[in-house]
Amino acid sequence: MRIAVDGMGGDKGPGTVVMGAVDAVNQDSDLTVLLVGNQDILKAELAKLKYNPKQIEVHHAEEEVTMEDHPAVVVRQKRNSSLHVANRLVKSGDAIAVFTAGNTGAAMAVSLLILGRIPGIVRPALLIDFPSNSPSGYTSIIDVGANADCKPKMLAQFAVMGDMYARYIRGVENPRVGLLSLGEEDSKGNELIHETRELMKSLKLNYIGNVEGQDVVNGKAELVVCDGFTGNVILKFGTGLARLIVDAIKHELVNNGWMTKVAAGFMLPVIRKFFRRLDYQETGAAPLLGVAGISTIGHGKSNSKAIKNAIFQAKKFGISHINQHIEEALKQNGVAEL
Amino acid sequence: MRIAVDGMGGDKGPGTVVMGAVDAVNQDSDLTVLLVGNQDILKAELAKLKYNPKQIEVHHAEEEVTMEDHPAVVVRQKRNSSLHVANRLVKSGDAIAVFTAGNTGAAMAVSLLILGRIPGIVRPALLIDFPSNSPSGYTSIIDVGANADCKPKMLAQFAVMGDMYARYIRGVENPRVGLLSLGEEDSKGNELIHETRELMKSLKLNYIGNVEGQDVVNGKAELVVCDGFTGNVILKFGTGLARLIVDAIKHELVNNGWMTKVAAGFMLPVIRKFFRRLDYQETGAAPLLGVAGISTIGHGKSNSKAIKNAIFQAKKFGISHINQHIEEALKQNGVAEL
Repeated sequence: MRIAVDGMGGDKGPGTVVMGAVDAVNQDSDLTVLLVGNQDILKAELAKLKYNPKQIEVHHAEEEVTMEDHPAVVVRQKRNSSLHVANRLVKSGDAIAVFTAGNTGAAMAVSLLILGRIPGIVRPALLIDFPSNSPSGYTSIIDVGANADCKPKMLAQFAVMGDMYARYIRGVENPRVGLLSLGEEDSKGNELIHETRELMKSLKLNYIGNVEGQDVVNGKAELVVCDGFTGNVILKFGTGLARLIVDAIKHELVNNGWMTKVAAGFMLPVIRKFFRRLDYQETGAAPLLGVAGISTIGHGKSNSKAIKNAIFQAKKFGISHINQHIEEALKQNGVAEL
Repeated sequence: MRIAVDGMGGDKGPGTVVMGAVDAVNQDSDLTVLLVGNQDILKAELAKLKYNPKQIEVHHAEEEVTMEDHPAVVVRQKRNSSLHVANRLVKSGDAIAVFTAGNTGAAMAVSLLILGRIPGIVRPALLIDFPSNSPSGYTSIIDVGANADCKPKMLAQFAVMGDMYARYIRGVENPRVGLLSLGEEDSKGNELIHETRELMKSLKLNYIGNVEGQDVVNGKAELVVCDGFTGNVILKFGTGLARLIVDAIKHELVNNGWMTKVAAGFMLPVIRKFFRRLDYQETGAAPLLGVAGISTIGHGKSNSKAIKNAIFQAKKFGISHINQHIEEALKQNGVAEL
């Protein structure tokens, strides 16, 4: 399985990406990573590490995308960026999937431009897994930022794509799918929710109706569907809140007398362990579902372990043939755009 | 200062409301609470407690609103509910403010119907204080559910009302006001945000531009403005997530060997203390800003301490003359509806 990796993407620099790629191939002899970027830099990083040279290829790219670059500008003016070249490797069939820990907006725009859409898809959407009390330990949220404004058919397609993701990538048998709103009753919602309701009910999914904010985490659903504005806000709010809570508890632990302080010595590793589970960004990548190819995007802060996990996850996507399942499911649910 | 309290509102029953009211007057000789509801029930509860009888009045109401009642039905068909009578006491000038821990939707509808709007207000909005890293320890969010669909002028008015709240109720000198979006840059937003941007910039507030989800908690702003759909979702998501995190940490604490277990004995009170701070619902009430009178709404789960605090908070509203300030500020900012 060949995975293209943007060697220049991510806050921690090419060294971290290269280390993650090498760790991945060293753990899985069935993987080949196509590292894309400045070949001098990538080769210099590779020279520091041990690996089977048949499992790593370096593909040179003249330019790189920064975190500050505007997506539209990247698409137009950086056609030889590592992001472009990596996506072209998927388009040409040289690789099964592309992963970047770089600029999320640019990654979405470039994948959409180069890979195009799965037939029938109106707009691709970004999905993330958020820790929850569901049996699988996670609830997926789609869309978390690709589409600030949505139409009913887009939400219905997000539901279908997310359902396929939950089944084929997360292994959930009959995913409970909820539409995020401000009350469970049909009468509760904004205009978009009201317009979308009947279409959602018509889908051949395990649709449980409206869910509320708390249902994202309490295990009521395996998949929560929302517009990309709301999804983006709750994702960032959730990450920020988790940090606030953990910091506040840590603060309390070391400021409540010596017994508590001693206890804190035992507690902090436990809290940190939990926080890692919550920080989805450390554990993999978010797929951009709906593009005709596999495109996954990691957090800029990804360390080498996150990069490695993301590469393993990209392989899982490749094995799953998820895009064929999505194309088929769109038709079966009557929401393919003609 | 006379405060009307819906004696029948709240999950815990009239006994809890009566106890909260009595605790409030026993701590503040300047308070009179007008308890509204079934007089037999209220008087029976009062008979169990000690207080200055001049500080508690019972006002009879034939009907009561349940948590399941639909707001529109309450408005039309339960005109003699304790909620209606309590609001009428404010309308008539008998009380300065009304507080209920009952059905939020019904409370908003009845207050809007009976009290009407502050001149110039398009739609009232619900505000809550969420714990954050801001110097005051909280960031206010407006709207958290009164208006699922908003227009630019409504968001601008929410900003002005929230600013007055932050100044006169929370005592923040020059509140930093942010517009919730999916990126800081002007280019990031949905249609509503794009349409609202210039109007927000025209306000004579300490407007800091777009803020993102994490900025609700990281202390970047004292006031975050959003539509009631997004606000409701993040409020409920935040409360659910806080519960998930605290439960998970508790679980880790008691499942990690005996040393950790012993340490947990010291830790759990600390964690519980923090959780109470986070659970805004236990600490007071959310004001429905924009109605021509003072209307505050507590969580259904409010205990007697929360009821007492909500009554103290209602008094603070009364002293502040916040509605006059809002009316004036709407004009000064050029966003009063003609």
